[in-house]
Amino acid sequence: MSLHESTTPDIEIPTVAMVHEAADRITGLVRETPLLNAPSLDRLAGRRILVKAESLQITGSFKLRGASNRIGVIPTTRRGGGVVAYSSGNHAQGVAAAAARLGLPAIIVMPADAPAVKIEATRAWGAEVRPYDRQNESREEIGQTLAAERNATLVRPYDDPYIVAGQGTVGLEIGRQAAAFDIRPDAVICSCSGGGLVSGTSLAIKDVWPDCAVYASEPAGFDDIARSLAADQRVSNKGGTTSFCDALLAPEPGEVTFPVMRRTLAGGLVVTDDEVANAMRLAFTHLKLVIEPGGAVALAAALSGKLPGTVDTVVCVASGGNVDAALFARIIGR
Amino acid sequence: MSLHESTTPDIEIPTVAMVHEAADRITGLVRETPLLNAPSLDRLAGRRILVKAESLQITGSFKLRGASNRIGVIPTTRRGGGVVAYSSGNHAQGVAAAAARLGLPAIIVMPADAPAVKIEATRAWGAEVRPYDRQNESREEIGQTLAAERNATLVRPYDDPYIVAGQGTVGLEIGRQAAAFDIRPDAVICSCSGGGLVSGTSLAIKDVWPDCAVYASEPAGFDDIARSLAADQRVSNKGGTTSFCDALLAPEPGEVTFPVMRRTLAGGLVVTDDEVANAMRLAFTHLKLVIEPGGAVALAAALSGKLPGTVDTVVCVASGGNVDAALFARIIGR
Repeated sequence: MSLHESTTPDIEIPTVAMVHEAADRITGLVRETPLLNAPSLDRLAGRRILVKAESLQITGSFKLRGASNRIGVIPTTRRGGGVVAYSSGNHAQGVAAAAARLGLPAIIVMPADAPAVKIEATRAWGAEVRPYDRQNESREEIGQTLAAERNATLVRPYDDPYIVAGQGTVGLEIGRQAAAFDIRPDAVICSCSGGGLVSGTSLAIKDVWPDCAVYASEPAGFDDIARSLAADQRVSNKGGTTSFCDALLAPEPGEVTFPVMRRTLAGGLVVTDDEVANAMRLAFTHLKLVIEPGGAVALAAALSGKLPGTVDTVVCVASGGNVDAALFARIIGR
Repeated sequence: MSLHESTTPDIEIPTVAMVHEAADRITGLVRETPLLNAPSLDRLAGRRILVKAESLQITGSFKLRGASNRIGVIPTTRRGGGVVAYSSGNHAQGVAAAAARLGLPAIIVMPADAPAVKIEATRAWGAEVRPYDRQNESREEIGQTLAAERNATLVRPYDDPYIVAGQGTVGLEIGRQAAAFDIRPDAVICSCSGGGLVSGTSLAIKDVWPDCAVYASEPAGFDDIARSLAADQRVSNKGGTTSFCDALLAPEPGEVTFPVMRRTLAGGLVVTDDEVANAMRLAFTHLKLVIEPGGAVALAAALSGKLPGTVDTVVCVASGGNVDAALFARIIGR
């Protein structure tokens, strides 16, 4: 377990004003996803549950929002160099799609043993994929070398204020959509890996509803955010465990995201893989949604007794739907 | 095969004005469902495909729209008697939910051997379920007796101008949503059983885009609409076949719906169960949608070469998502 200073003076910390600017910048590039509910699910949960279905976002996850905002602020003089990112998952597709839609070339550094379907989906957006060997190569070094050679801009998965602000547009939409239903939630839960989604969303939510409790949800064994919030400093995962929530395995909270989270979050909720699988099954049955494991941790927390009993209405962000068909079939067919 | 007169003089034929009235009447009772697309799916299809996801409608199908509109026009003096309907599937849940939301009691006549999950879902909306024996009882007789005893209003699945007008609000939303994306489709395809959805939707679509071709899509062996349109008179299914599209097994076009369809539709498209299963898999992979077999026939037609080559942009209505988990797992896991 490594310890860090909890703040770093030269880091730009994102604000709610940046989230509003992001919303203006990415309008037309991302989809406004629906806020869904089912009375039958509410009865099971003993509270009202609203699901923000980012699984229905273009590219199948919220990652397109941050990537579109980050790439949207690249100065004209640097746009020709394109972008570079490293990711084996949703960030890869988000960056590839955002770059394509904004007319920049993209190169994505992906593990050579990543699922073929994810590599294909990234290539399908027109990105060049640079495979690397997880055992013998460093993706950071490859990315930095490529960026230097091509004058390309590195698009980080979460530790960037423009990425955080872009993901925060999820929170703005929740605020607007809940208000249209005349609903004021007591809590909002986001899945959490490096903290880009939950920190950005919390900025927007606390601006609209200062009393609303915003939680990060994580898989057991990868509860670095929950423990960092409790310790009020960044701590890493202990290691030695696995989870099928492949989107949520970042080792520690981000340097940019943690200062936001420690100010805005009510805490971290931790769920088991079994609780996640159950949430995926219930989302299929009651909401007709395909949610990937990492996308279902927020709903899992709401459905398995992790929230205070005083929470009557909760919004759960379903952050993505990129799940392998065989795995999804196994989970819902149980 | 039975033949019928193609029009009956004393039937009220729905109009686009009734569809607009329905939209006003059911606002707030139904969900505006998203119009989704995926470039990767477009590439596979060789054309632009937009999917109107009625699988995400409250109750998991479009049936809530027609039921809400029909129940909404029941005169005050008759509301206390409630409503009665017979259905083993999506119409049962649609009527139960609409009645609950409008404050009327509902009794649904369902086969005793209907899947327990569908009976439970109907009861969960507060409806009374009257089971009947498919072999030895007539659901029409039971429904009429109950209606007479209780002064209840019978809510038909499709042969009612208010039902047709309610389903037609799908078409109004398509028109508005496509315009917001600056898209003018060449064709719209709806799944079709008795014809309520496709006839109502076609009224709205032809009003906005007179040159847009609207098609009914049906499972092979249940192609009564395609053959009726070709013959310009109502003909029945030949029988002797089965399909896993359990929502689409009506024996013949409706008396109310056929006069609309013969005027507005470009024709009927017929798909095999294998083509439907393939469409369900592709909707899962590219759109993260759960679509039931009967809800996937429109997409199946667009993906399997049933449209003229001149159709560049097509809207497919995914009419429902109420599919058993084991069946869905089997189809996507193949």
